[in-house]
Amino acid sequence: MRKTPPRHAEVEIEVRYAETDQMGVVHHANWIVWLELARTRLCLDAGFHYSEIEKQGLLLLVTGVQIAYRGAARYGESVVVSCWVKEVGSRAVTFEYHVRRGETLLATAETHHIWVDAASRRPARFPAALKAPFENYLPTNRLD
Amino acid sequence: MRKTPPRHAEVEIEVRYAETDQMGVVHHANWIVWLELARTRLCLDAGFHYSEIEKQGLLLLVTGVQIAYRGAARYGESVVVSCWVKEVGSRAVTFEYHVRRGETLLATAETHHIWVDAASRRPARFPAALKAPFENYLPTNRLD
Amino acid sequence: MRKTPPRHAEVEIEVRYAETDQMGVVHHANWIVWLELARTRLCLDAGFHYSEIEKQGLLLLVTGVQIAYRGAARYGESVVVSCWVKEVGSRAVTFEYHVRRGETLLATAETHHIWVDAASRRPARFPAALKAPFENYLPTNRLD
Amino acid sequence: MRKTPPRHAEVEIEVRYAETDQMGVVHHANWIVWLELARTRLCLDAGFHYSEIEKQGLLLLVTGVQIAYRGAARYGESVVVSCWVKEVGSRAVTFEYHVRRGETLLATAETHHIWVDAASRRPARFPAALKAPFENYLPTNRLD
Repeated sequence: MRKTPPRHAEVEIEVRYAETDQMGVVHHANWIVWLELARTRLCLDAGFHYSEIEKQGLLLLVTGVQIAYRGAARYGESVVVSCWVKEVGSRAVTFEYHVRRGETLLATAETHHIWVDAASRRPARFPAALKAPFENYLPTNRLD
Repeated sequence: MRKTPPRHAEVEIEVRYAETDQMGVVHHANWIVWLELARTRLCLDAGFHYSEIEKQGLLLLVTGVQIAYRGAARYGESVVVSCWVKEVGSRAVTFEYHVRRGETLLATAETHHIWVDAASRRPARFPAALKAPFENYLPTNRLD
Repeated sequence: MRKTPPRHAEVEIEVRYAETDQMGVVHHANWIVWLELARTRLCLDAGFHYSEIEKQGLLLLVTGVQIAYRGAARYGESVVVSCWVKEVGSRAVTFEYHVRRGETLLATAETHHIWVDAASRRPARFPAALKAPFENYLPTNRLD
Repeated sequence: MRKTPPRHAEVEIEVRYAETDQMGVVHHANWIVWLELARTRLCLDAGFHYSEIEKQGLLLLVTGVQIAYRGAARYGESVVVSCWVKEVGSRAVTFEYHVRRGETLLATAETHHIWVDAASRRPARFPAALKAPFENYLPTNRLD
C-alpha cells in the first residue's frame, strides 16, 4: 500500500443483495460496475458529470479491464472504491482502483479507455478541457 | 393450466451462475429479464426483430410488470418462458407469461407496454404493420 | 399522493451507468433491485440488518412483485425510494414503495413475501421479534 | 488468430436488451458474465456440470479477470464465446477466451481461479478427477 496515495476519488458502496451469488459473496462481474461508480465520482470531483460529457457527443469507451481479487465482499458490508489516473494519452486514459473494506484491500484494478466521437464511433482526441482535470489525478502530478 | 394454450412464443433459458443470489436461487429481478427474452422471441416469431422496430423510431416502453413466483430456479437448470398477447389497445399492449421447468409452473407474469416515439418520447399509435402479427398471439384470435 | 404518509424507510440511489439500457434510461428490471435496497433500509431502521435474519436461518422469499412505471430515470440523476408495510400476515408480509425524483413520482410498487426456513425451504411463522417492528411501518399503526 | 485453435468449448449467446447500456452497446461488465457461460460449457463438455462440483464442497473462485475489447456487441446480434485452458497449477487454473461475432474477434480475455473448500473457504488442491479433463483443453495437450 502506498504511503502517500495519489489524489483520488472515493465512493462508498453498500453491497446489494442482488449483487451476491450462490457462493454467498458478491459475484465477480459486479465489482466491474463498482469501478464505474468510482470513475463517475472522479469525473464529478474533477468538475463535470460524465453524463454531461456524453451530451457533448463524446464517449469514453472501455477498451480493457484488469482486476485482481484478494478478498470477498458480502451483503451487510460496505466497501470503498478509490480511483485515480494512471496514464493520460493523446486519445486514451487509464484509471487505477483499490477496493477496500475498512483497512482490508479486497481488489486492485485498472481500466483502459479511449475517447470516441458518439456519432461516428471513431477515436477522438482527448478533450482539452478535461485533460488537466484528469492529469491532476495522476500520482506524479499531485498538486495539493 | 390451459388445456388449449394460446399461440405463444417460447424461449429456453439456461440459468446463469451470475443470476443466482446468496439464497442459492435465481434472484427475483433476473426473472424480469427472462420475460424480455420471451418478448423478443415473440416479436421475432411474428416477423420482425424488436431491434428493427427501434431503428424505425419506435419504442415499446414497459409501463408495468406483475409477476407471481411459485417456485425457485437454480444454476444447473433450464427454464422455458412462454409468452403471448393478453390485450391489444390503440397505443398499448399487454403480454402474459408462464415460466416452467419441465412440467412445473414456476411463475406467471404480465407486462404492460405503450408505444412511444423514440425522438419525442410521447405516446404513439400502435404501428399498423405490427398490430395483426401481435393480435395473432391473442388467445381469442388463434388462427391455426 | 398521501397527505400524511405512513412511517417509511427511505433510500437515495444515484443511478448507475450500468443500470441504463439502449433506450437511454434505467432498464425496468433494475428498479426491482432498487425496491430491495429500500427493504434492506426498512429492516435496518427497524432494528436489524436483513443479513442478520438470514444468519438465524430464516429467509424472506419474494413471492410476487407489482410495479407501475410513470416516468423514466436517467444516469446523472438520483432517485429516492420510500418503503413501508402494507400488510402483515401469519407467515407473510407485503411492502409498498414509491420511487421519486424530487417531487416527481416515477413508480409505485408492492412486493409480496413469505418467511421460510432456510434449511427446509418450507414456510415458517412470522418471527415474533420482527412482527412489532414491521407493524410499526403499517399505515394504520403509526405510532409517532 | 491461431491457425490450429486448441480444443475449446463454445457457447453462442444472443445479446439481451437488458445487457445494453445508454451507449447503445452491451455494457462492458456483462461480457464478464458471458465468459462464465463459456466456462460452464467447458466444464459440461469435460464431463461434469459446475453445479455438481459445488455440491461436492468445492468452489472455483475467480481471483482475476483480464479482458481486452476490440469491438462492440449490440442487441439483435449473437456472439460466440470460445474457452480453453491456458494453465493448470496445483491449486489454480487459468482460462482463455475469444469472443467473436461471425469472423470478427470482439474480445480476448483470461480469468484466473483457485480451488477452495466451500466450508472453510481455504485453498484446496486441484481435484484429481478434474485435472485430466481440464488439461485436455490445454493448447499443448490436445489429444484429438
